[in-house]
Amino acid sequence: MSTQTNPLVIFTPSGKRGNFPVGTPILTAARQLGVDLDSVCGGRGICSKCQITPSYGEFPKHGLTVKQGALSEWNSVEERYKTKRHLIDGRRLGCQAQVQGDVVIDVPPESQVHKQVVRKRAEARDIVMNPSVKLFYVEVAEPDMHEPSGDLERLLTALREQWELEGIHADLHILHTLQTSLRKGKWRVTCAVHLDDARIMHIWPSYYEDTIYGLAVDLGSTTIAAHLCDLQTGEVVASSGIMNPQIRFGEDLMSRVSYSMMNPGGDVEMTTAVRESMNALFVQITTDAEIDKALVMDAVFVCNPVMHHLFLGIDPYELGQAPFALATSDALSLRASDLDLTLHPTARVYILPCIAGHVGADAAAVALSESPNTSEDLVLVVDVGTNAEILLGNKEQVLACSSPTGPAFEGAQISSGQRAAPGAIEHVTIDPVTKEPRFQVIGSELWSDEEGFADAILSTGVTGICGSGIIELVAEMRMAGLVDGPGLIGSAAQTGTERCFVDGRTNSYLVWDGSAEGGPKITVTNTDIREIQMAKAALYSGARLLMDKFEVDNVDRIVLAGAFGAHISPKHAMVLGMIPDCEIDKVTSAGNAAGTGARIALLNTDARRDIERVVREIGKIETAIEPRFQEHFINASAIPNSAEPFPILGRIVTLPDVNFNSGGEGSGRRRKRRG
Amino acid sequence: MSTQTNPLVIFTPSGKRGNFPVGTPILTAARQLGVDLDSVCGGRGICSKCQITPSYGEFPKHGLTVKQGALSEWNSVEERYKTKRHLIDGRRLGCQAQVQGDVVIDVPPESQVHKQVVRKRAEARDIVMNPSVKLFYVEVAEPDMHEPSGDLERLLTALREQWELEGIHADLHILHTLQTSLRKGKWRVTCAVHLDDARIMHIWPSYYEDTIYGLAVDLGSTTIAAHLCDLQTGEVVASSGIMNPQIRFGEDLMSRVSYSMMNPGGDVEMTTAVRESMNALFVQITTDAEIDKALVMDAVFVCNPVMHHLFLGIDPYELGQAPFALATSDALSLRASDLDLTLHPTARVYILPCIAGHVGADAAAVALSESPNTSEDLVLVVDVGTNAEILLGNKEQVLACSSPTGPAFEGAQISSGQRAAPGAIEHVTIDPVTKEPRFQVIGSELWSDEEGFADAILSTGVTGICGSGIIELVAEMRMAGLVDGPGLIGSAAQTGTERCFVDGRTNSYLVWDGSAEGGPKITVTNTDIREIQMAKAALYSGARLLMDKFEVDNVDRIVLAGAFGAHISPKHAMVLGMIPDCEIDKVTSAGNAAGTGARIALLNTDARRDIERVVREIGKIETAIEPRFQEHFINASAIPNSAEPFPILGRIVTLPDVNFNSGGEGSGRRRKRRG
Repeated sequence: MSTQTNPLVIFTPSGKRGNFPVGTPILTAARQLGVDLDSVCGGRGICSKCQITPSYGEFPKHGLTVKQGALSEWNSVEERYKTKRHLIDGRRLGCQAQVQGDVVIDVPPESQVHKQVVRKRAEARDIVMNPSVKLFYVEVAEPDMHEPSGDLERLLTALREQWELEGIHADLHILHTLQTSLRKGKWRVTCAVHLDDARIMHIWPSYYEDTIYGLAVDLGSTTIAAHLCDLQTGEVVASSGIMNPQIRFGEDLMSRVSYSMMNPGGDVEMTTAVRESMNALFVQITTDAEIDKALVMDAVFVCNPVMHHLFLGIDPYELGQAPFALATSDALSLRASDLDLTLHPTARVYILPCIAGHVGADAAAVALSESPNTSEDLVLVVDVGTNAEILLGNKEQVLACSSPTGPAFEGAQISSGQRAAPGAIEHVTIDPVTKEPRFQVIGSELWSDEEGFADAILSTGVTGICGSGIIELVAEMRMAGLVDGPGLIGSAAQTGTERCFVDGRTNSYLVWDGSAEGGPKITVTNTDIREIQMAKAALYSGARLLMDKFEVDNVDRIVLAGAFGAHISPKHAMVLGMIPDCEIDKVTSAGNAAGTGARIALLNTDARRDIERVVREIGKIETAIEPRFQEHFINASAIPNSAEPFPILGRIVTLPDVNFNSGGEGSGRRRKRRG
Repeated sequence: MSTQTNPLVIFTPSGKRGNFPVGTPILTAARQLGVDLDSVCGGRGICSKCQITPSYGEFPKHGLTVKQGALSEWNSVEERYKTKRHLIDGRRLGCQAQVQGDVVIDVPPESQVHKQVVRKRAEARDIVMNPSVKLFYVEVAEPDMHEPSGDLERLLTALREQWELEGIHADLHILHTLQTSLRKGKWRVTCAVHLDDARIMHIWPSYYEDTIYGLAVDLGSTTIAAHLCDLQTGEVVASSGIMNPQIRFGEDLMSRVSYSMMNPGGDVEMTTAVRESMNALFVQITTDAEIDKALVMDAVFVCNPVMHHLFLGIDPYELGQAPFALATSDALSLRASDLDLTLHPTARVYILPCIAGHVGADAAAVALSESPNTSEDLVLVVDVGTNAEILLGNKEQVLACSSPTGPAFEGAQISSGQRAAPGAIEHVTIDPVTKEPRFQVIGSELWSDEEGFADAILSTGVTGICGSGIIELVAEMRMAGLVDGPGLIGSAAQTGTERCFVDGRTNSYLVWDGSAEGGPKITVTNTDIREIQMAKAALYSGARLLMDKFEVDNVDRIVLAGAFGAHISPKHAMVLGMIPDCEIDKVTSAGNAAGTGARIALLNTDARRDIERVVREIGKIETAIEPRFQEHFINASAIPNSAEPFPILGRIVTLPDVNFNSGGEGSGRRRKRRG
C-alpha cells in the first residue's frame, strides 16, 4: 500500500478490484464494483448474508502483501452473529469489516445473490438463483403532520431509496396489516417483493429471520409431482407426488377430452378434481417440510396442453380436433387464488408457454432444462410418455413435434402389461441358445435364476410386465431370434423352444408361469409385439421427420427425458429402432427434465424470459399433417434387420435373419390415431 | 380541384386538411390527419360511430367549391344503417363515403372519440370523454396447424395490428369463453379493453350492439350517492342514493373510529356493512336503468379518509390520533371483487388519492371538479359537512386543510335541530322592526305568513330547524338586533319582543309554537348560538389560515360545495362570518362537486393522472398543529360588528351595534375538538 493512494481491495473469484478510502465497509466496496455480494438488511448488520473471507499473506499474482490489520477489528455485531448464526471461522460480515489496508476478499458461493444451485448431471448447467420473490429489509420514515403521506407511500419511498426498487405497488391485503406491522417493527420491516409484478406480497415487522418458499410442479396426465424449494438458497426441501385424479375420467388425454365432450360440465368436474388434488399435494408437501403453507409465495407449473387447459378451467374441446387450437400458448402469470390454490393469499403462479397444440409447457420445460438451443452438436431430446414430445436442434435452430405413441410404453394395452410397481418385470435377458428368459422384478435386486429369488418375491409375486420390461422383452426376443424383422413370433418348431406356443392365429412366448402358486401366466403375444411396434414407430417417425427437416441421417447425441426415459435401456431402445442410430455412449437420461425445467423457472426469473423467447423461435412441426410422417411410420414399424452385426455397449449385437411369415397376418397394418 | 393534384379534404371544426387520392374513405383521411372521428368496428361499416356531414357549395374562406359528387354514392351499408339506426338526413358513414373531389367534412360532436359531456354550470369546463374501458371490434386470424399459436395470441395480434394496442393481456376468465366466442362470431369479436391495465375484460361474439357502463360513487359519512354512466356517451343513465349504514355505529366519523377501537372486529363489521349497502345500491341503480349489473365495468369512488379506510377494510385506528397517518394516500386501482362488489366479474375500481389525514379523496374530487389549480383568480373552495374541507389557490399554488366544524351545520347538536327533511325550517327572515319571524319549511313553497300555509304543512307540521335554517335564523337574529356581536341573545326588555324569554341563565328566542296542535315549541337557545359560532369559527379559521399562507385578506371568489353548500344562503353565511369577505356575486354553489369529480375521473382517465399530480402538488396545512388556527378561532367566534353598513345582494346590511352582556357567560369559551 502506497501512502499516497487509498488501499486496494481485490475480490475473488470475480477478480474485480478498486481503491477505497480507509473505513469503507467491504459491502459498500463490493456494491460500487458490482461484485455479487448478498444482503437482505442493506448493510445494517442484521441479516448476516454478506459473509466474506479475507485472505492474508503474499499474493505475488497481484503483487500484494495483505497484512493482519488490513480490515477493521472483529466487532460486537460479528460476535453476536458468530454465536447466533454460526459464522464459520475466518469469515467476517461484509457490512461490518472496513478497509484498513490492501486486502483480498473472497466471496463464498453462499454469499452471492445469484448463487448457483448445483445440478447433479455432469452435462447440465447449474441453476443461477434469481427468483421472482425476494426479501428486502427497510427502515421507513415515520409520519409527519407537516408533510402528510400514507404509510404505504413512505414504505415505497424506502424501497426506492434503500433498494432502488422503482414503481412498486402493494396488494390490497398489505394495507390491512401495514400500519400495525410498521409500528410493531418500530418503522423497520421486511418486505417480500414480487419483482416481475413490482408488488409487495408480504410484510413482517422488523427483520424476518426465516425464509420463503416456492413450488415447482410437473402436472402429468398420470401423476402430479412437486418440489418445494427454498427461494433464498434454491434447496429442494421436500418432494412429493400424487396420482392425477383425472385418471378416473380417462387414462389418456384424448379420453379426457372425449369425457368433457360427452358430459356437459365434465371439464369443470375435471378442473375441480385436479385443483383439489393439487391443494392436497401442497398440504402434504408443506406438512412433510414442516412449514406454513402461507410461506409458499411462488409456484411454477408445467404440463401438456390438455392438462394445461383443464387446470386453467378451459374446456379442452378444441384440442381434440384439427387444427388443435390452444386457447392460449404464451406463458401465463396468474394469482394462485385464480386457480383456487391455497398458498400465500397472493401467491403467484407461472405456467410455461406451450409450444403447439400437442407440444405443451412440459416440452418447453424440457427445452429449458436441456437447452438444445445452446447445444454445439445436434441433440435429439425425447420425452416419452403417452405422447412423446420430441425436440431436435442445436444453437442454430430447434424443431419440435409430438407423436402419439399411445400408452404401450407405459405397460398399458399390453396383455400382461402393468404400471411400474413391485412385482412388475422391468429387466429381461433371453439366452440366444436356450431361449430361456431371466428377469428382475421391481422390488428385488435378484435375477429370476439367482438363489433366493422365490423368497425375495414372496410378498408380491411376479405380477406383470412394466413399460421398460416390455421393451427389453421384445428387443431380447428379436435378438434371440424368437421374433422376426416384420414382428412375427415364431412357432415352437421355428424357434426350437416350447415357450413359443400357438395362441389363436399367431404365436405367443411364455415368460413366467405362476399359475401353480395361483399367480398369472405372463406371456408376450403377437398383439403385444404389434402394440410396441406401433408405439416405437410413432416415436421414431417423429424424430425422423425432424431429422428430415435438418436433412441429416444421424444425430450427435440423444437425451431421454421423462420418468420413463430414466428407466429405459438405451441398448434395447436402439435394437427396437425406437430412436435413431447414435453412438450408445451419447445416449443419456435426463430423468424428469420437465420437473427440472419447472424448478429452473421457479428459481430464476430470467430463465422464464429465456424460455419464452426460445419457444417463440422453436420451429413447430405438426405430425398429423406431414405426409412423410405416415411414410416413416409404415417403414418404421418393422424391427430392424441388421445385415451387419453392430456394436452396442462394447458388445457386438447380431439380429438373426429370420422370417416367420406363414402368410397369416402381415406387417402392413396401419392405424391412425388422430384426425 | 386541380387535375394535377389529389382532391382536398377539409375537416371542420378542427380545420385539419389534406389531399387524398380518389377513393380514400373519409375515415381513413381523418385518421391520417389525426382528426378525432370515432369508430369501434375499425371502418368495417358495422358500428355507425363514424358519422360525418359533408357540406356542399361555396367556401370562399377556403377558396373552395364543393360539388355534388364530391363523395362516392350513398351505398347499401349506409342505407341499412339509415333504416336500423336512424342516420340523420345529410349524414354519411365516414368508412363508406369515399373522396371523389374537393370536400368539406363536418365531424358532429357525437362522432368524436373524445366527445364532450356538457356540464350545466356556466363556469365549469365540460368533461372530455376518455374512459378507461373502451370497445374494440376485431377480425382474428383462424388457427393454422403450420403456425401453431393460441387463439388468445392471435386475438392480441389483431388488437395490435388493427387498433395499435400493444402489450395487452387477458384476465383468466376471458380464456374460459374465448374459444367459443371466436367461433360463434366467425373469428370476429368485440373486446372491452381496460386501457390503463392493458387487459381484455370481456369478449362478445361479432359486433356488440349495446354499450357498457361505469359508476361514479360519492361515499359520504351519511349518504352514499351513485351515478350510473354510459361509458360511450358519458350520459348519466340513472342516479340513486342510500343511507350509509355505518350511521348505526356512530353519526360522525370520530365516533366510528371510537367504535372500532372499543369493539374488537368493529372495523370489519363496518366494512361489511358499507360494502353490503354498496351492493344493494348497485342493484337498485341498475334495476332503475334496466341494465345487467355485469355490464358495469368501471367504478370510481370518492370519500373522506375514515370512510376510505373502512371501505378498503383498513382499521381507521391511526386516523383517530395524531399524527393522523393514512395507511395509503395515493390513488388506488383495484378489482371490484377485491372489495366484494358484485359488478362485472373483473370490473375495476379507481379511488382518488387522499390529500392528507383529514383531507380525503372527496376533497381531491372537489379539486378535480373545481380545478382551483387552473384558476386565474384566487378561489376559495369550501366543502361543508361534518368536517369542512377547504381549498384555496390559483394556478400558481393550491393549499388545502380541513377544519372540524362539527355537525351543527347539519342541524345536529342544535336544540330544535334536525336533518333536512319535510317539516324542517330551511329559510327565515326576521322583521327588523317587529322582530317577528317568517319562514319556509321543506316540502312547501309558502312562507309561514302566507295564506294556506297551515294547510300546506298539515301532513308534516313544523318539526324543527335544518342546517341551512339555523344559519339563516342566527344571521337574521343578528341583523334584527336580537343577538349581539359576542353572541348573546337579548332579553325581552333589551330587544322589545316577548319572543325573547329567559331560559336558565341566558335568553332564548321563540320561532314557532306548535304546542297547541301537539307539535313542538321551536326555539333558538343561546347554546345553539354558541354551537353555530364554534362551527362557523372553525370554518372561517381554516380559510383564514390558508389566506395567511397566501398573505391575503381577501379572496377573488368563493365556491361552496357539498349538498349543504347547495342550500346555504351566501348572504347569511357572510353575515355570520362563516366565509371571508368576498363580493357576493362571486360566491357560487358547485352542488355535489365531489360527486362531479368522481364522474370526471370515471369518464376521463387522463383526469385521473391530472388529479394524482395536482394532489401531490397541493400544499397540506394541518390545522391541529398550526398555532394561528387557535388564534383565528378565538377571534372568529364573535359575529361581526360591522361599523359600516355593507352591501349584500344589492341591499345595504347594517348590523345593529348592540351588546347584551350582563356580566353572565362571556364569549371567551374555547373548546378543542382534537388532539
